Amino acid sequence: MIESTWERYRDHLRDIAKLVAAEALLEWDARTKMPARNGEYRGEQAGLLAGIIHQRRTAPEVGEWLDELRDAEIEDDALRAMVGELDRRFRKDSRVPGALVAETTRVTSVGQHAWVEARRNDDFAAFQPHLENIIRLKREYAEAVGYEQNIYDALLDDYEPRQSTAVVAEALAGLRAALVPLVSAITECDRTPDRSILTRHYPEAGQRELGRAAAAAIGFDFDRGRLDETHHPFCTTIGPHDVRLTTRYDEQFLPSSLFGTLHEAGHGIYEQGLPAEWFGLPLGSYASLGVHESQSRLWENLVGRSRAFWEHFYSLAQNTFPQALGDVSLDAFHFAINDVKPSLIRVEADEVTYNLHIIIRFELEQALLCGDLAVADAPGAWRDKYESYLGITPPNDAVGVLQDVHWSAGLIGYFPTYSLGNLYSAQLFAAAERSLGNLADMFRAGEFTPLREWLQEQIYRHGQRYPAAQLVEQACGEPLSHHALIAYLRNRFSALGFDLPPE
Amino acid sequence: MIESTWERYRDHLRDIAKLVAAEALLEWDARTKMPARNGEYRGEQAGLLAGIIHQRRTAPEVGEWLDELRDAEIEDDALRAMVGELDRRFRKDSRVPGALVAETTRVTSVGQHAWVEARRNDDFAAFQPHLENIIRLKREYAEAVGYEQNIYDALLDDYEPRQSTAVVAEALAGLRAALVPLVSAITECDRTPDRSILTRHYPEAGQRELGRAAAAAIGFDFDRGRLDETHHPFCTTIGPHDVRLTTRYDEQFLPSSLFGTLHEAGHGIYEQGLPAEWFGLPLGSYASLGVHESQSRLWENLVGRSRAFWEHFYSLAQNTFPQALGDVSLDAFHFAINDVKPSLIRVEADEVTYNLHIIIRFELEQALLCGDLAVADAPGAWRDKYESYLGITPPNDAVGVLQDVHWSAGLIGYFPTYSLGNLYSAQLFAAAERSLGNLADMFRAGEFTPLREWLQEQIYRHGQRYPAAQLVEQACGEPLSHHALIAYLRNRFSALGFDLPPE
Repeated sequence: MIESTWERYRDHLRDIAKLVAAEALLEWDARTKMPARNGEYRGEQAGLLAGIIHQRRTAPEVGEWLDELRDAEIEDDALRAMVGELDRRFRKDSRVPGALVAETTRVTSVGQHAWVEARRNDDFAAFQPHLENIIRLKREYAEAVGYEQNIYDALLDDYEPRQSTAVVAEALAGLRAALVPLVSAITECDRTPDRSILTRHYPEAGQRELGRAAAAAIGFDFDRGRLDETHHPFCTTIGPHDVRLTTRYDEQFLPSSLFGTLHEAGHGIYEQGLPAEWFGLPLGSYASLGVHESQSRLWENLVGRSRAFWEHFYSLAQNTFPQALGDVSLDAFHFAINDVKPSLIRVEADEVTYNLHIIIRFELEQALLCGDLAVADAPGAWRDKYESYLGITPPNDAVGVLQDVHWSAGLIGYFPTYSLGNLYSAQLFAAAERSLGNLADMFRAGEFTPLREWLQEQIYRHGQRYPAAQLVEQACGEPLSHHALIAYLRNRFSALGFDLPPE
Repeated sequence: MIESTWERYRDHLRDIAKLVAAEALLEWDARTKMPARNGEYRGEQAGLLAGIIHQRRTAPEVGEWLDELRDAEIEDDALRAMVGELDRRFRKDSRVPGALVAETTRVTSVGQHAWVEARRNDDFAAFQPHLENIIRLKREYAEAVGYEQNIYDALLDDYEPRQSTAVVAEALAGLRAALVPLVSAITECDRTPDRSILTRHYPEAGQRELGRAAAAAIGFDFDRGRLDETHHPFCTTIGPHDVRLTTRYDEQFLPSSLFGTLHEAGHGIYEQGLPAEWFGLPLGSYASLGVHESQSRLWENLVGRSRAFWEHFYSLAQNTFPQALGDVSLDAFHFAINDVKPSLIRVEADEVTYNLHIIIRFELEQALLCGDLAVADAPGAWRDKYESYLGITPPNDAVGVLQDVHWSAGLIGYFPTYSLGNLYSAQLFAAAERSLGNLADMFRAGEFTPLREWLQEQIYRHGQRYPAAQLVEQACGEPLSHHALIAYLRNRFSALGFDLPPE
């Protein structure tokens, strides 16, 4: 009885996953292959499919199935965890009034257009009423779905299921306190790499080859995936054996494609490591955005910017780009790819300053949501924080409070997942090293499989079997903390010759 | 009232078109980009989407809308024609019992697998019961949907709407009578081109470049389309501004990609010329498979194998392949791409013998359907006809009666559309020349636009405004006939120095 209910529900979810994967293909194609002139039609097509998916997700029988399953005694632990997560999610969604969903869709759609214009004209006042509406709707949403302690919890949970704002806030406060002096110390030191190394001429064909080799070396399986070109790189999953990376080639700047590819490959390796037999179900889905980002950042930064990685790969890079790199030493190259410099734009930030950009947004959106900060005052608060944390002041709002699309799209509670990813990446890397021994020695020998297999065992294979925080804590033997990330950064930059203050 | 009924129906059809286009993308991607390991999942995905499309096509409200529209006075001619065609199609489909649809799906699915095996093992007996079932189901289908004169009419109509078997049979009988002596004359003559020219080494990059240049020159719009690589080339439409060609590169045989690309580009030019505002509706859809094929063959053969075309293009070909073509004269190249030789395999046949392959299939499938020929006797009948029309005898059934997938897939009535395409292509080309003057002079100057614009005006822009036969007759000022094709072939091969018998 319960078995057959579960089977019906499972097949229903699998059908939805097939449609979601079709939607992902429409989107991938639109961003990589489609003639631009077909864009409007493709948008209508995606909208139609999204409607069909929504209808199936909210079909009345889903509630009936869950009513039955909720009270059933399910012996299998994994199955029980999966049903529990599906039920929790369904009940959360059911508490959102249809009118609120519709208004949010409308307001964020208009809001994104308004944001594009406002950023172009550096005119925050034009965007302000839209952001006020969005904040109001997000508050209504949080009140409708409910929360235990902090109104922000309700939003954070959409991206980082079952995570608590208080826990994240504490970790990020610790991170900020450690990062600000670290950034100052690095900035004030007169050591700077030769930045011109990375802006030499790097022919696209070589970038393709090197990026592909690097992604394959760390374990992205090209028999179950692809790498294509796009404007704004992303990774997407189109089937249980079809994970696609994208990148962008700038012939005058090597890092965009090289570290971009490693970043997306990290996402892709996680997706390829999820159990294919549970594709589209919680046991076959990523644990949280934070855990996802931990994998992209681990492979991009902790692995890809390590000296050991380049001791293995640099000769290939030199052979690929003899003109640009023939006369550049490994040390000079490694220093250049670890350049640190406070800057205004988050997406261009280096690994050390990046989290300060996130912390600023996290602090501001909490204050906006609980009413401590009026939307009209956001530009000023933004400037103040950039000055105090990064020592730089945005000359205008276009490169200040208006720089990101997230708020205009209603994505509030999303930003901290980037920093969670960075924290998790360092904690997981340290735990892997405790378990496997010196990872740098392995990288030097081109051996990335032990690390990937450890992550497979600890993280990938579990899907959403456990809440993200618990999953990472089990793997690391410690709760969320900033210490591993700070230790890793101090190590790397000490080794690069920087004189760092005691922690 | 009627307006709002039509608008609802029209929007319903547009939504269906969006789903069909998504299905086309799933298929295009599977055949060009997807990692092979994802194939099984992709098949399930396509099946799900096909089910959703079928449900919408057969939704009860469609019948109600058509009941209202059928009796309404629709003033606009084009709209009336469109509603008439939709109603005709819907009523035909409604006459097919659901059980017959289901059984046909099952039997052809099993039949295709059986055919693959049977062909591999050269074992017609293993396929025979499947083909018997398929013929029986096709008869049942024809009886269910009804026909006026010939049971074959009901099947032909699925691919060539409102065409009559008698008309096609008469044209193809005339064609056969003229082709058989023409093939003999060409074959018996001791003139043969240097075939080794086309099997030299043609690097893939050059083939890409040349194929793309040729497709663009004849008018395929790459701002509204693409060209990719695949195993079995096809052209597909993925949106009103997104038509995709595919081709295959064989470095030891230039014609596959070169004429393959021109062929698919011909299909693509037709699709791009259909009115985008009626995408997915009869006024925005191709008139028939025969008309579609007329465009691929016109651009591939009448244009692409003409001497004038190569007077314009040959220097580019020589520059692209200096090693292979540097020492080859235009005349030698032109003769080589117009090589005629009776052969066993339809898809590899030259332009002159090709239609005899089709006529054989057309005659056999009519005989099978009306019961004049038992399935068990098909292999022998096949051999006899190859001997009598082409002067060659298949050494086995694998390269004989088992060579094509069509019958196993239930595609009976499809083959004659290939020959209709060839007949129409020659008739349209001759009519265009009567209207525009000497086309060869234009081609020599690289001017293909006048011909394309004439076809746009006469054919493309009308969609399904008129039945295919009427559409072509209006454009040519004459009904279906074999004379234009024969005249064109005689011209070309006389110019190539063959001594042809009087007509």
